[in-house]
Amino acid sequence: MLQRGCVVLYPCTQMKIAIQGELGAFSHEACRRNFPRAKVVPCAVSSEVFEALESGRVDAALIPIENTLAGPVVVHYDLLLEHDFYVNAEFRLRIEHQLLAVPGTKFGEIREVLSHPVALDQCRKFFAKNKKVRSVSFYDTAGAARHVMEEGKHEQAAIASRVAGEVYGAEVLQSNLEDDAQNFTRFVLVERRARANKDANKVSVAVGLPNKPGMLFKALSVFALREIDLTKIESRPVRGRPWEYAFFLDFMQTDKKAAENALRHLEEIAQFVKVLGRYRSAE
Amino acid sequence: MLQRGCVVLYPCTQMKIAIQGELGAFSHEACRRNFPRAKVVPCAVSSEVFEALESGRVDAALIPIENTLAGPVVVHYDLLLEHDFYVNAEFRLRIEHQLLAVPGTKFGEIREVLSHPVALDQCRKFFAKNKKVRSVSFYDTAGAARHVMEEGKHEQAAIASRVAGEVYGAEVLQSNLEDDAQNFTRFVLVERRARANKDANKVSVAVGLPNKPGMLFKALSVFALREIDLTKIESRPVRGRPWEYAFFLDFMQTDKKAAENALRHLEEIAQFVKVLGRYRSAE
Repeated sequence: MLQRGCVVLYPCTQMKIAIQGELGAFSHEACRRNFPRAKVVPCAVSSEVFEALESGRVDAALIPIENTLAGPVVVHYDLLLEHDFYVNAEFRLRIEHQLLAVPGTKFGEIREVLSHPVALDQCRKFFAKNKKVRSVSFYDTAGAARHVMEEGKHEQAAIASRVAGEVYGAEVLQSNLEDDAQNFTRFVLVERRARANKDANKVSVAVGLPNKPGMLFKALSVFALREIDLTKIESRPVRGRPWEYAFFLDFMQTDKKAAENALRHLEEIAQFVKVLGRYRSAE
Repeated sequence: MLQRGCVVLYPCTQMKIAIQGELGAFSHEACRRNFPRAKVVPCAVSSEVFEALESGRVDAALIPIENTLAGPVVVHYDLLLEHDFYVNAEFRLRIEHQLLAVPGTKFGEIREVLSHPVALDQCRKFFAKNKKVRSVSFYDTAGAARHVMEEGKHEQAAIASRVAGEVYGAEVLQSNLEDDAQNFTRFVLVERRARANKDANKVSVAVGLPNKPGMLFKALSVFALREIDLTKIESRPVRGRPWEYAFFLDFMQTDKKAAENALRHLEEIAQFVKVLGRYRSAE
């Protein structure tokens, strides 16, 4: 499932790509699908991912920015604002939760299922149907799969990605435990330099607005007046500047001239406008 | 630090209040401060909190809705939309991270510190300064404190709330590990019925808008035209209705008549408008 933008921009080079989380995390799965030959560099926390990119230890970072059910990954918005990097591509991954266990485990033996609280919450129907199975919170989906394999008990299973099963040698006992098939995560590829992408049809910007009545209305007028489609709006308090807000906006660039005019108009209204990237929409 | 709205609405009754998380979680700390005589009912996941309220097993739920650094708690927005409950009060809690250890532990003995990834990420400077101390992700801050006490090792410590220290008998070795003092969580008190609150100056609504260019601009016009101050905007995909968005708006109600007119005007534009609550602002 190679994405269009990816094929054009990233021929089969062996890039080093940093992800947040352990091997087997959903970011790893997103990497595998879109950059099958890349070397994945796992980082414990998000700030490490950005440090790895800053230092040149990796060529790029692939980070989740938004999940349709769990919402925005706000730490990544903040880090994109702090650093002068560029979003050069976006990808969507359908989140499919697998029930992973020690090979040979029978379903009836399982008494507890470990996973990240967000993943557990996305599989409510599974737990409602299987009353004998207790859900146990774990810090990480992939970490839960690794833990189950290390313990080697048939009473334990994990909810994690298919890749986590492969990485740690667990067996998939049941597939697609998620309640909602509309469970997608949007990932963005971040690099130190902007790539000139002729196919770009989407723009991500961060906008600083003073906390006064009507300011957001004014800011949105620059798009509405030009019939530009806003696909995303996210507000974030700016770190260290209390009561000042940054808005993260994604909009479709069907007419390049209109998009440029809108951004110029926005600069008249906003405290700052920072273009985070121009890239091909994954939708 | 009793909040004004609370004193008026909730005299010293012994309410049963559901929280998400273990005893010692920050929700527990928020409960203690605002309802010191309440009986706290801990629930593993957020859906359980709402079920407890639905069934009448508790009188109210105190849930975090937004953290200044980590962002919105989107699962709570979704649950507020799904259920017909009311937000009757809001409270702010400053998040203060304490270093908790087995009593008698010396700081130099500590080799690893356990906590929830969000808490670890909020104490980056502590780890940058103390290179010998490894950060270890755990599913829950209070759970980390409990784990450290159960293990009883001097090499381990946890980052959690002061209440977690009290609940599990841990010693506070260092206080206020958080990088940013502007680390606040906003909690809301949810009940089955709306309370008539004369002091109410803030309104929370959920608004359904079709995914068409300019719709949000139109929706915001009802506030901008009346100079009503919007304090929060949050967008969420509606569960089970792909590409349909719900916006959660908070606005200040300085003039009750103007607020009512704005809501009526909004109903002409939106697919639905649901008032989540009218209450006294904590700010």
